[in-house]
Amino acid sequence: MQVYLDNNATTMVDPQVVEAMLPYFSEQYGNPNSLHKFGTSTHPALAKAMDQVYTALNASDNDDIVFTSCATESNNWVLQSVFIDLVLNGDKNHMVTTEVEHPSILATCRFLEEQGVKVTYLPVNDQGVVEAHTVRSFITDKTALVSVMWASNETGMIFPIKEIGEICKEKGVLFHSDGVQAIGKIPVDLQSLHIDFVSMSAHKFHGPKGVGALYIRDSQKLTPLLHGGEHMGGRRSGTLNVPYIVGMGKAIELATTNIEETAAKIRKKRDRLEDAIMQISDTMIVGDRENRTPNTILVSVKGVEGESMLWDLNKGDIGASTGSACASEELEANTVMLAIGADNELAHTGIRLSLSRFTTDAEIDYAISHFQNAVKRLRSISSSYAVQQPTKGGEAKDCELHHP
Amino acid sequence: MQVYLDNNATTMVDPQVVEAMLPYFSEQYGNPNSLHKFGTSTHPALAKAMDQVYTALNASDNDDIVFTSCATESNNWVLQSVFIDLVLNGDKNHMVTTEVEHPSILATCRFLEEQGVKVTYLPVNDQGVVEAHTVRSFITDKTALVSVMWASNETGMIFPIKEIGEICKEKGVLFHSDGVQAIGKIPVDLQSLHIDFVSMSAHKFHGPKGVGALYIRDSQKLTPLLHGGEHMGGRRSGTLNVPYIVGMGKAIELATTNIEETAAKIRKKRDRLEDAIMQISDTMIVGDRENRTPNTILVSVKGVEGESMLWDLNKGDIGASTGSACASEELEANTVMLAIGADNELAHTGIRLSLSRFTTDAEIDYAISHFQNAVKRLRSISSSYAVQQPTKGGEAKDCELHHP
Repeated sequence: MQVYLDNNATTMVDPQVVEAMLPYFSEQYGNPNSLHKFGTSTHPALAKAMDQVYTALNASDNDDIVFTSCATESNNWVLQSVFIDLVLNGDKNHMVTTEVEHPSILATCRFLEEQGVKVTYLPVNDQGVVEAHTVRSFITDKTALVSVMWASNETGMIFPIKEIGEICKEKGVLFHSDGVQAIGKIPVDLQSLHIDFVSMSAHKFHGPKGVGALYIRDSQKLTPLLHGGEHMGGRRSGTLNVPYIVGMGKAIELATTNIEETAAKIRKKRDRLEDAIMQISDTMIVGDRENRTPNTILVSVKGVEGESMLWDLNKGDIGASTGSACASEELEANTVMLAIGADNELAHTGIRLSLSRFTTDAEIDYAISHFQNAVKRLRSISSSYAVQQPTKGGEAKDCELHHP
Repeated sequence: MQVYLDNNATTMVDPQVVEAMLPYFSEQYGNPNSLHKFGTSTHPALAKAMDQVYTALNASDNDDIVFTSCATESNNWVLQSVFIDLVLNGDKNHMVTTEVEHPSILATCRFLEEQGVKVTYLPVNDQGVVEAHTVRSFITDKTALVSVMWASNETGMIFPIKEIGEICKEKGVLFHSDGVQAIGKIPVDLQSLHIDFVSMSAHKFHGPKGVGALYIRDSQKLTPLLHGGEHMGGRRSGTLNVPYIVGMGKAIELATTNIEETAAKIRKKRDRLEDAIMQISDTMIVGDRENRTPNTILVSVKGVEGESMLWDLNKGDIGASTGSACASEELEANTVMLAIGADNELAHTGIRLSLSRFTTDAEIDYAISHFQNAVKRLRSISSSYAVQQPTKGGEAKDCELHHP
């Protein structure tokens, strides 16, 4: 059995999505910008995909949704263009973000710091979440943008986006959210809150890698990142990737139709896996499960290096992660665990398990059994765990992290 | 019969390319950055694709080839990052390009002009080509970059890239070429000339839309356009689009293996179509066919609006263009024809026909017949052609443009 529990890194493309894309490679292959029927015959499918995304997010007709090549592009676009519009060609010089953003936000912020922008990286609380009042206290009259993730890729914790949106509206500051880990996992209703820009990525909800989008409230001004042939109403140039746009539309429709029902099913499996892991002594899970996306567990297994655990699971054909795939090629401590106050040793014991709607009960059974055995085996050869062998066992507590 | 003669706008994805991509949607769907086997199992295919691109271009192991989402991204990347590196954080303030570049170059230049960069737009000669000595005379000690297309999307004319490269090397100025219309159509050997950056796009050589690359000589410094998870060695962040990268590798291999032979076959069909068009009175074709990519014809049919011709061909299921698809939604005069000195009336009569290796002799027969009939019909209802009816007929000359 193969068990893929790394759906926060990427997901399998739903076979229905592949089927929807296929005609646009070698049959309806025209350039949508061409005037002849080879080009125009793609328009209904593109219009349908656009409708599917608007519907999924409950965006308004006044809003823009612009297809991009990925959420990394969407995130870079917002940050770099707000820099162009309000810093380089304006009188702002400050941005507010969090310590736990995805690398595509953090690295762009570091780049902008080199260009003279001041960036405030907000700390998270012991749940791994930035509190709305913290955002308020760091906004100044020089602040151009607040960028706070909707849900954490590492912990699944959901951030108080509605409250932060209200603060930004009140303060007159642009508000962006990296919605990659929220969209397709939890209900997102963009008309129910105030948010200027939202990034998303198809491959996190069973669409293909290499297509994403940016939501732009009220079609407001935002200098393009990619200049050129005036595609997408002049907002993002580059020949339209027809198959992937069609695929993204289909994927978001599949992910968000009856999302509560699907989420409940995933949550049930996740909770069963989580309960079983918590039966193991000296394990800790980050964040209340009620405030998490329904598919995610970030667990610390005392005395077991995250990488060792990952390799052991991998030998059993289980795909997991020590954290963001975008930062996983180096064996570093889990940054979110450090941010919530874990010591360095603990932060090296994090393992992220992330389910999808394709995860089966049999796979959960297999994963539980393998996880238990792996912990037993790795602890038996762990010098650090032998030294720190606890006197009381089996008392794992949700969200309780031992600060140094 | 359907005849697609708009291959400079985009191409059909070769079914062999689709076949190569398919396993990476729903089977080997892991994130290549993940440490488990779902991720690492994609590595051999990615390495193979990279090899295929290096081989096709004869790039050196010291060079970088970075996959992007399209040539528009590659072009924006070079221009915007040279701006960051050498203008914003350096002492240069000038770039040199041509009047006939693709919109992704021209629009980015206009954006950079708004940020204070001085841009020289070089004129073309009556063949639609920028001469190397012209480039030399506009380089100053403030010039950061020269960007000249390898071949024209509109005319197919091939630019003197080797000579311009030598001038840039001598002057110590960075040299970029938009290679989109050259790569896959004519032999390109990057070790045989001096060029710092080359943009390319898979969908111009029967790969998918939504993937391209940037060649970077000697892995030299170029600030990323997309910051983030340090993908592609830190040069271009964003989860790797595994299927499309695999597809681009396969597509460039198919397009460049035996390229002379394939090009000769396409050229033979193109020349037959061109000869037939030149038999029609008062037609003019831009540029010596010997110096053009083997698949392209830009023809002016006196007295016939390009758009009318396009619609007539479209009714006959023939896909053609009045110029760049990226500029084709507005019914403007062909910019290249204006640049080479055509008057406004003439520039409205341009029709571009571009073949591929999939174009058949039967399709050429069909296109010739339909083209002849369309000209007859449209001229019979053309008030402008009736007035200017020439006394001598059937004397169309290659490259002869009547300047006002």
